[in-house]
Amino acid sequence: MSYKNFPMVPRVIFGRGSFNQLNDVLASKRLGINAPFIFLVDDVFKNNSWLTSRIQLSYDDKIIFVSAEEEPKTSQVDDLVEDIILMSKQRPSGVIGIGGGTLLDLAKAVSIMLTNEGSAKDYQGWDLVKSKAIYHVGVPTISGTGAEVSRTTVLTGPEKKLGINSDFTPFDQVILDSELTRGVPKDQWFYTGMDCYIHCIESLTGTYLNAFSESYGNMALDLCKQIFLEDHLSDIESQEKLMMASWHGGMSIVYSQVGVAHAMSYGLSYLLGTKHGIGNCIVFDHLEEFYPEGVKLFKQMKAEHGIVLPKGLCADLSDSDFNVMIKVALSLEPLWENALGKNWKKIITPEKLKSLYQKM
Amino acid sequence: MSYKNFPMVPRVIFGRGSFNQLNDVLASKRLGINAPFIFLVDDVFKNNSWLTSRIQLSYDDKIIFVSAEEEPKTSQVDDLVEDIILMSKQRPSGVIGIGGGTLLDLAKAVSIMLTNEGSAKDYQGWDLVKSKAIYHVGVPTISGTGAEVSRTTVLTGPEKKLGINSDFTPFDQVILDSELTRGVPKDQWFYTGMDCYIHCIESLTGTYLNAFSESYGNMALDLCKQIFLEDHLSDIESQEKLMMASWHGGMSIVYSQVGVAHAMSYGLSYLLGTKHGIGNCIVFDHLEEFYPEGVKLFKQMKAEHGIVLPKGLCADLSDSDFNVMIKVALSLEPLWENALGKNWKKIITPEKLKSLYQKM
Repeated sequence: MSYKNFPMVPRVIFGRGSFNQLNDVLASKRLGINAPFIFLVDDVFKNNSWLTSRIQLSYDDKIIFVSAEEEPKTSQVDDLVEDIILMSKQRPSGVIGIGGGTLLDLAKAVSIMLTNEGSAKDYQGWDLVKSKAIYHVGVPTISGTGAEVSRTTVLTGPEKKLGINSDFTPFDQVILDSELTRGVPKDQWFYTGMDCYIHCIESLTGTYLNAFSESYGNMALDLCKQIFLEDHLSDIESQEKLMMASWHGGMSIVYSQVGVAHAMSYGLSYLLGTKHGIGNCIVFDHLEEFYPEGVKLFKQMKAEHGIVLPKGLCADLSDSDFNVMIKVALSLEPLWENALGKNWKKIITPEKLKSLYQKM
Repeated sequence: MSYKNFPMVPRVIFGRGSFNQLNDVLASKRLGINAPFIFLVDDVFKNNSWLTSRIQLSYDDKIIFVSAEEEPKTSQVDDLVEDIILMSKQRPSGVIGIGGGTLLDLAKAVSIMLTNEGSAKDYQGWDLVKSKAIYHVGVPTISGTGAEVSRTTVLTGPEKKLGINSDFTPFDQVILDSELTRGVPKDQWFYTGMDCYIHCIESLTGTYLNAFSESYGNMALDLCKQIFLEDHLSDIESQEKLMMASWHGGMSIVYSQVGVAHAMSYGLSYLLGTKHGIGNCIVFDHLEEFYPEGVKLFKQMKAEHGIVLPKGLCADLSDSDFNVMIKVALSLEPLWENALGKNWKKIITPEKLKSLYQKM
């Protein structure tokens, strides 16, 4: 048996207000006056000088505001890379992603595609990246996805929704400043936090579980329970704990895998463009038979925060639509094997998946 | 306020039997046939072919067996570095430490001193190291110290017991194979495990505590309770969980600090050569007034495992002996400030420390 040699984020700053240290961190990484830093920033911060005024632009550095309304796409990565090459005299000194999972995944993918030929879609899969990415920094402004710590960047391509999983994907530096998450709207806070919660349930109940993943998963799960079910935390405590939950939840799946909710949610997202956080919630809400305890607790959390999930997403779908979703979901074999064991194909048939999707 | 930009171990393999992957990991790191790998191995493994036969020596690679009977010394590091320079045609490709905290700390220090001039004692302190260390790998064979994950290497020098704390100290690669810990004698298992437990108590009750350290500390503490107070774990589960507890306990103090037990234990160790694990236990056993809950649980763990600690270590000490210990202990200001706050000097006087040491 061979175990993964997992690449960890080699540098992390944690602390309220630590975003102020970004400029100092970057200063020592500048390769030259013609090699700019490119800041990919969620466009919700476009007129937010509280955040943007703290990004010090020198020489040819650029901020590119990107909408996170849609899930990140391989074509979007290709376009960004082309824009950056055109606007930069030399290969950039670094890419800094500031935002939620979408922006973090885009920053990771762009940093890879600045040193690897072809299109991002060519690298969707496991260990297809040949050259080291350029220096890249992740600054989460919403917590839950674990994108700040993972070795993947999940992209929707022309043929599949699948991550670029590689040793070159993880950030070189992460800054965990929970203050940046203070303005997240409640529903988004819930959906993204539930991404973390669902990671944990899928990891902790999976067949790939081991002591490494279990310890991280338990820690993140415990934090999620404190945040979403108890009401003694201050806002700051809650924001800090969710930032750590996201981190640990991401670490938990490093050495295990996610499961049924993620596989099915990828299908929804591929066909309908459903965002990952809410997509996971919509799916997970119907997975009692796979995760009885986890779904029960999820429904409690939903009730506690007055969250009402959309219904009837699949009401008007054609058979060929269902087949597309089912094909995407079934292609994620490691997720199914983790969730249900080696004989998962006996349990999860296309018909079974269709009957589940029809509830959503 | 400025937060630490903490260097994490960038690569980790976790799994039972993962030690078998060491040779593959090293193969890609060899700098040339004249640049050997140097394996520093605890001499308890000297005739243990189960372990040593799996270390593949090529070209000029060498195994150096080192006794961990005594705490690591700056002079020992200097001697090892000199030996390695004499035996190697070129600067080594890497140093691999295989053992407990002593071997891991020696490997870290040797890898630093192969690229930095002078004596190891010149670098005891914070951020004094100028040049990047050579590639170094840590393989713990006993769990608890957190040396596999920390950015320090604690050494006894001619003037002080203090770590080489630097961004270049952490390992480039760690292999966490709990199978290697299966032969640890029970008392050693307990003392080293308690190093982790005491880290957690000191971190979790300290004034430096934050959400980062708290989440790691709680996780490690929970694992320690399972391991040392409950009896439903198999040997393998217990070994795996202790390996993770050590890891998380080490991460917890990254962003906080240890406290009273460590400060006083350094004094004992400096004067009497008391090993770190047992020294911590001897001290902690008398710290009810600082850590009431933690010490209560510690005494339960001690009873559960029939551990009897040595007594009367300080019975025959002279006043000048006491003064030496007190001076070493008081010099560790961050530890005291973490434990007792900014006004710690009002609580901890030389007389107070003497009265505590006299109980030991």
